[in-house]
Amino acid sequence: MMSVAVITYDRDMGRWEPNARGRLEQAALELYAERGFEQTTVAEIAERAGLTERTFFRHFADKREVLFAGGEILRELLVGAVAGAPEFAAPIEAAGAALEAAGSMIQERREYSRQRQAVIAANASLQERELIKLASLASALAEALRQRGVGEPAASLTAEAGIAVFKIAFERWIGGTSQPGLPQLIRESLDELKAVTAGR
Amino acid sequence: MMSVAVITYDRDMGRWEPNARGRLEQAALELYAERGFEQTTVAEIAERAGLTERTFFRHFADKREVLFAGGEILRELLVGAVAGAPEFAAPIEAAGAALEAAGSMIQERREYSRQRQAVIAANASLQERELIKLASLASALAEALRQRGVGEPAASLTAEAGIAVFKIAFERWIGGTSQPGLPQLIRESLDELKAVTAGR
Repeated sequence: MMSVAVITYDRDMGRWEPNARGRLEQAALELYAERGFEQTTVAEIAERAGLTERTFFRHFADKREVLFAGGEILRELLVGAVAGAPEFAAPIEAAGAALEAAGSMIQERREYSRQRQAVIAANASLQERELIKLASLASALAEALRQRGVGEPAASLTAEAGIAVFKIAFERWIGGTSQPGLPQLIRESLDELKAVTAGR
Repeated sequence: MMSVAVITYDRDMGRWEPNARGRLEQAALELYAERGFEQTTVAEIAERAGLTERTFFRHFADKREVLFAGGEILRELLVGAVAGAPEFAAPIEAAGAALEAAGSMIQERREYSRQRQAVIAANASLQERELIKLASLASALAEALRQRGVGEPAASLTAEAGIAVFKIAFERWIGGTSQPGLPQLIRESLDELKAVTAGR
């Protein structure tokens, strides 16, 4: 879903460029890994991708957005999945199903996710941005639960706990080698959360 | 506990100053509220407190630390309370007791907390810093649980869920008027988390 190819017309190079966005992403990740995020310029990313800066800026507001544009897609997917959960599903089950759906989407791009995570881990300001992204996903999830009629503080608690489950499952997935897929790790982590809150 | 008076010798003014730290904090909060955090200088904070810049820098590394120095105290309190919980307490109960203890400490400084929260809410970079503080409290809590022999991912899940409970209880407490105290709101939020994860 995130890897849909889009053909972009590069005015400066005077040709249609297949999957310009994906090429820019890949070039950016390579350069961030090689030189560091701070040391990489948009001009270098465009050059590595064989595209122009103008094309870069048609896809991304700045070099940081290359790493965080997926957050918006994730937010929409979570909100849509919560809204679409069976009417009588408990809030935690609606949130869990949404997080598993997000996990399936992320899992399709494991190598991208791993590269992205390494770049973020190497840069304090990107780590901050990632925390903000997670906090805003929790807010969106809470709002989607309130739209289903879940009251407060139940909606916020479910959303925050859900994002905690997601975060920990993601860390296990990205750090592991031969292990279960991300959706399964999310399910297992949610079960573990149920166990720990039950005092086990 | 956080309001212990300390007498500081102000070399430039050539006198001993009672509770210089508290006066600097209060002056800083007033100025941040009046002028905004970015627009306030350390010189202005010192002047408002009737102290010198040199004295300011003996207490705080910079003007941001005035708002975040308490995070370290909170971390130590949480870690100590988890370590001191009864040997057979379930992880979630050990974490809950620690968070209630933190809540008691914060509650002693309600007006300070309210002013601080208003300053943070008005500034995006301070909000980021607050998220980082919460994330580092969750890490410290997880480590304290592992020291008790709690495995992973149970320790991290308990810690993240605990910090989520704390955050939501704090928001309810700081936003409310005549309501229960913070420790009680933490207890209630933890009970609510137990209920939502149990699918209720």
